[in-house]
Amino acid sequence: MRVAFQGEAGAYSEEAIIKHFGRSVEPVPRPYFRDVFDAVESGEADLGLVPVENSIEGSIVRNYDLLNERTLKARGEVVLRVVHCLIVNPGVRIEDVRKVYSHPQALGQCRAYLEERGMEAISAYDTAGSVKMLKATGAVDTAAIASGRAAEVYGMEVLARGIETHAQNYTRFLVVGHEDHSPTSDDKTSIVFIVDHRPGTLHMALGSIAGNDINLTKIESRPLLGKPWEYVFFIDIQGHREDAKIHKALTELGRSCRSVKILGSYPTAKP
Amino acid sequence: MRVAFQGEAGAYSEEAIIKHFGRSVEPVPRPYFRDVFDAVESGEADLGLVPVENSIEGSIVRNYDLLNERTLKARGEVVLRVVHCLIVNPGVRIEDVRKVYSHPQALGQCRAYLEERGMEAISAYDTAGSVKMLKATGAVDTAAIASGRAAEVYGMEVLARGIETHAQNYTRFLVVGHEDHSPTSDDKTSIVFIVDHRPGTLHMALGSIAGNDINLTKIESRPLLGKPWEYVFFIDIQGHREDAKIHKALTELGRSCRSVKILGSYPTAKP
Repeated sequence: MRVAFQGEAGAYSEEAIIKHFGRSVEPVPRPYFRDVFDAVESGEADLGLVPVENSIEGSIVRNYDLLNERTLKARGEVVLRVVHCLIVNPGVRIEDVRKVYSHPQALGQCRAYLEERGMEAISAYDTAGSVKMLKATGAVDTAAIASGRAAEVYGMEVLARGIETHAQNYTRFLVVGHEDHSPTSDDKTSIVFIVDHRPGTLHMALGSIAGNDINLTKIESRPLLGKPWEYVFFIDIQGHREDAKIHKALTELGRSCRSVKILGSYPTAKP
Repeated sequence: MRVAFQGEAGAYSEEAIIKHFGRSVEPVPRPYFRDVFDAVESGEADLGLVPVENSIEGSIVRNYDLLNERTLKARGEVVLRVVHCLIVNPGVRIEDVRKVYSHPQALGQCRAYLEERGMEAISAYDTAGSVKMLKATGAVDTAAIASGRAAEVYGMEVLARGIETHAQNYTRFLVVGHEDHSPTSDDKTSIVFIVDHRPGTLHMALGSIAGNDINLTKIESRPLLGKPWEYVFFIDIQGHREDAKIHKALTELGRSCRSVKILGSYPTAKP
């Protein structure tokens, strides 16, 4: 099975694919998020995996937008603990490291570690890309911050693992495919709906969810481009779209909204 | 007056500072968002300006988190139309450009333009940083994508302006300072509140807003790290915290939430 993801080989998304599907699948790297959707739609990949939320940096709402624009459905959820590693060319010792390359967010998340050791942080466009570049240069006074998977992919050495300041660093991914998942005993459903931009419209819409005793696990608003008086909301709720109470809630929701679209139902990620 | 922002000289945030405050203020570049808050808290800068939302890429919720953690208040709003420019060393002609450096998001937003002209997109960590690097190398077959301001700052040439595929590309910024803004006739207020993670709690909380005929312009949920049964919500509403109906709504909101914090009231950005 082939699973497309955004980024270079060794990206955290690739780590998430291995966590969820095991090592028998083939991860397919693509430069942009929309290329992940293209790869699945065209049959180059069987499934795709995209990040939608990080506990420190926030939502990657671009991927909810793509689910809304395209015909693919969300059919799985993966939650990955982000463990940043200090990675070097084989044989380099920690006392030789002067400079550290990585994506600015990863550098920011490891700032305390770098400052304590007097290492200079240098921004690069990507975490796994920094490891690839470090290998190409063969530098012996330089490290990169990326996933353990990146060290493995490029045959590099991990000098330290878990160097981020906050251990509560999780990224949530959705698996996308041509169809969503059949019901299990513990599911979630992602939905997008549009309401008029007047006081109370969101409150009325959420009444359909609350009134049917359904738990909301995420909500995010987005202005509708070029339509300043309409708003789009992305919500995740607990339950499967085939559950009776979800079905009832979505019917009611349809009455108070301009439009409702189900982005897919999928089993809740196991901790 | 000194206004801190995140990024290199010539960043879109710097363009937003000039749009809002004019050319007499001194923009103060800082590497990370939290450094912007530090600069204002320590008195190195009088105010700060941070992005909170982009119409294509979504929220930069990290900056709402910082407003929640720190004592600074939101006191202004700026909405900037993002106009990507193709920037080269002086004298370089468009037919000579083979490679284009920029941040992956900017490259993605200009993909149609680059592909039509057979230009190779190469990821860099920053838009303005690409222009700085391009100047340093003096390359004559290479361009960078960044703001018009970046070309100005580094003495470079703009070959094309507005090369993004979607013209509806806006970034919304908040100005932060020690106090929020006094009331005008058209204000917004940013609020953070925490509710228990049970069905209906958000619906009840939003009832205080809707019941007082107040318009909601943004909502975003965030799981509370280490507290799986509590959720934090960031909302923006129309009106000033000193308005009678906002005051009443916030008092009611306080009764149905674990906590409510006002992040600041500020005049709505003029289009």
